Amino acid sequence: MSIDPALARFCDGREAEHLEVLKRWIAVPSVSADPERAADVAACCRVVVEYMRAIGLEAEVLETAGNPIAYGQWLGAPGQPTVLIYGHYDVQPVDPVELWNSPPFEGTVRDGKIFGRGAVDDKGQVLMHLAAIDAHLRTRGRLPINVKVVVEGEEETGSPNFDEAVKRYARQFAADAAVISDTSVFSEDVPSLTTSVRGLVHWDVEVRGPAEDVHSGYYGGAVVNPLEALASILAGLKDADGRVAIPGFYDGVAELDPALARELAALPYDETEEARKLDVPALGGERGRGPLECMWYRPTLECNGIWGGYHGPGYKTIVPSWARAKLSARLVGEQDPIRVRKLVSEHIERNAPKGVRVRVSDGGSVRPVVISRDHPVVAAAARAMEAGFGKAPVFIGTGGSIGPVATFDRILKIPQVLIGVGLPDDRIHAPNEKFNLKQFFGGIKTMAALYDELPRSGLGAGGGESPKRTG
Amino acid sequence: MSIDPALARFCDGREAEHLEVLKRWIAVPSVSADPERAADVAACCRVVVEYMRAIGLEAEVLETAGNPIAYGQWLGAPGQPTVLIYGHYDVQPVDPVELWNSPPFEGTVRDGKIFGRGAVDDKGQVLMHLAAIDAHLRTRGRLPINVKVVVEGEEETGSPNFDEAVKRYARQFAADAAVISDTSVFSEDVPSLTTSVRGLVHWDVEVRGPAEDVHSGYYGGAVVNPLEALASILAGLKDADGRVAIPGFYDGVAELDPALARELAALPYDETEEARKLDVPALGGERGRGPLECMWYRPTLECNGIWGGYHGPGYKTIVPSWARAKLSARLVGEQDPIRVRKLVSEHIERNAPKGVRVRVSDGGSVRPVVISRDHPVVAAAARAMEAGFGKAPVFIGTGGSIGPVATFDRILKIPQVLIGVGLPDDRIHAPNEKFNLKQFFGGIKTMAALYDELPRSGLGAGGGESPKRTG
Repeated sequence: MSIDPALARFCDGREAEHLEVLKRWIAVPSVSADPERAADVAACCRVVVEYMRAIGLEAEVLETAGNPIAYGQWLGAPGQPTVLIYGHYDVQPVDPVELWNSPPFEGTVRDGKIFGRGAVDDKGQVLMHLAAIDAHLRTRGRLPINVKVVVEGEEETGSPNFDEAVKRYARQFAADAAVISDTSVFSEDVPSLTTSVRGLVHWDVEVRGPAEDVHSGYYGGAVVNPLEALASILAGLKDADGRVAIPGFYDGVAELDPALARELAALPYDETEEARKLDVPALGGERGRGPLECMWYRPTLECNGIWGGYHGPGYKTIVPSWARAKLSARLVGEQDPIRVRKLVSEHIERNAPKGVRVRVSDGGSVRPVVISRDHPVVAAAARAMEAGFGKAPVFIGTGGSIGPVATFDRILKIPQVLIGVGLPDDRIHAPNEKFNLKQFFGGIKTMAALYDELPRSGLGAGGGESPKRTG
Repeated sequence: MSIDPALARFCDGREAEHLEVLKRWIAVPSVSADPERAADVAACCRVVVEYMRAIGLEAEVLETAGNPIAYGQWLGAPGQPTVLIYGHYDVQPVDPVELWNSPPFEGTVRDGKIFGRGAVDDKGQVLMHLAAIDAHLRTRGRLPINVKVVVEGEEETGSPNFDEAVKRYARQFAADAAVISDTSVFSEDVPSLTTSVRGLVHWDVEVRGPAEDVHSGYYGGAVVNPLEALASILAGLKDADGRVAIPGFYDGVAELDPALARELAALPYDETEEARKLDVPALGGERGRGPLECMWYRPTLECNGIWGGYHGPGYKTIVPSWARAKLSARLVGEQDPIRVRKLVSEHIERNAPKGVRVRVSDGGSVRPVVISRDHPVVAAAARAMEAGFGKAPVFIGTGGSIGPVATFDRILKIPQVLIGVGLPDDRIHAPNEKFNLKQFFGGIKTMAALYDELPRSGLGAGGGESPKRTG
């Protein structure tokens, strides 16, 4: 299939304008993990709402127990399906900031890419939808479907208040399907739709030794060193095969079915090339499983940060008072985040080395989600992607976690499609995050085509004026 | 024996004055590990030289390849022994500075103690000698021995240039014995002399993973995590019994001889009370060995700092690009620092986990030293300590390292005595370092008595006017 030429022409003519909007959004440092950025986060929400209004949506700031939601709707297609479009305006922290080649909060175009924090995750991908809506409204004066655009501000901290917000605004958010653009395609040449999303939980581990740092000469050898105790805790979390060594951790994790294993094997994935791009001697993972399986269909238990003792210039010969680490796990299949949180916390505390005190606090709870490929909305998305990028997509998993996917699954109980167009090398969450302009502009056309595809997809029309279900 | 009453009266009358001098010295932040404090380090050297001159020594700043030495001498006792008195004016860093109850570079007297960085390690103990010399010179107009006072400025960074300096100034430093006050007594009630000093070497370990931090969702499970690789390296350095698991590490380490084991067992050491004071659930160390053996007569391999990944507010789900750790080892007996440095570096690099790059750099080289108890200078020191503190000392080890002790042993080849009077709870190298005034003032009298003891100890007199040996 192909996109309506009038929509395509409109999109082609507005590329510079869309880039300017994205730059303005990147300029608002909406880092949700940093309490000092709270005002910027709120400002970013208002900026998105203002843009929604400018393109003709009925838009407002929706309060939540945490950061607000930017909400916009256009409900002028009675009898047609209603689609909830989800994205987030908050972004990851930017440190180590010295590794950025251009300022993280300044959208900088180089070499066919726009660099900046949030360029692709997820400001640029939210903007694809608003630009596509704009194309429809300004080309035809109307949309073929009803849209409800929900852009939240806490995705990067695990969407802690989104479940509650969806319950609170269940009537307003009611829809026949959700469309989420917060993922990547397999590669520039292999467009794809994501049908499996990992879950996420977090821990903070604190190991306490002596009340104060003590001299490693006086006490070294007789006082248990908290850094070493922490290292032994971390090293003990996995066995020699790279499997998590906590009993019960893999409950709910199924082996790949043979058809999926064949699909994985058929993908053009070059492990050596991937290692080269990452600049590592080799990839790792569980023994006997390939990298794609490890990244998409296996859980992880991972250390994201560790610190303690002296790290200034020269040497300081101490047994330090404490050591800390941040851990997180990615979950798959039927793993229950609440159960895994508790399991890991208790395992670490129960197996604490003697001579130190270990305290674990946990947080975050994003369920893994598996999306059926058989739903009409997924088929419509596949056709739209072919229209936008000239090639039918394959189906893949993502190792990332998108809390709201789990929320829509459990609370709104609506089908959903994950149609993101980022690239695997976009360095999201890392210095020099970027969004290839070809993907950005192709994504806008894909979304414009998707809205035309949905009325003919066989998707029911129940969420337009009144909610089908409330949470 | 007891101290000459005239000397004792002089010392008693000058307590306030000595305290003021110590406060002035503490006020100079001579942190040798911090390149930004280089000017303060140099200033501290001058302050010590000025005080030496004020009490009547012939004094000067001696240049070295690193920080200068404050040198003072009085050689007016021909035919009598010449003693090299060693100490250091440099101090440890002060962080975490927020844990200090009073400013670290301000000597603050509370509760019979003076608090401040360097109070006891080693500014206060250097001052004990100068105050004792002052007592002799102002009471009698002369000293019973010749003294050469060598106060260096790099002890806290492992005295990297002291060997060379001692070779360069071998003629000037020539002496019949060295007296070093940079150690502690066993406890306030148990005066002691130290006859065993551990050696010291350092390593910096760097583990490199992906060129940049990467998203733990995208890559987690397939890219080896440098933090986890570092944790497994550290955890693998010791076995389940707490023994260093590097082949050859214990070469040159002898088991305690039965007499020494009995002496250790006879010391009034309460392991439970020690754990309570440190606020740890229990002490640790090698299985089957007591804490005193572990601290004094066993080597260690210890982590002093570790850092990598995210440690800001909230969470950042990354596989970080790198992880780093600082390690050090304390050595005993016949362990060779150069060999141990190489052994550990090679072991870590050879056993690097797959999927990361590991680089180890090493530094520092302080030999362990065992001092014979049978030498006359040790006997003289024991009598002096009894004069100063009213009780004959016992013989103990120290877990700390004093590079110059190794230097004098190897280069000047002179007998030495370690007569420090700090207490084990002085928190040297930690926040709230202090020196009990009773120990400080008792130490001054001990040193005054020591100078009277030495001529009658049987110690030869060869180093006064001409060097016995040159390096």
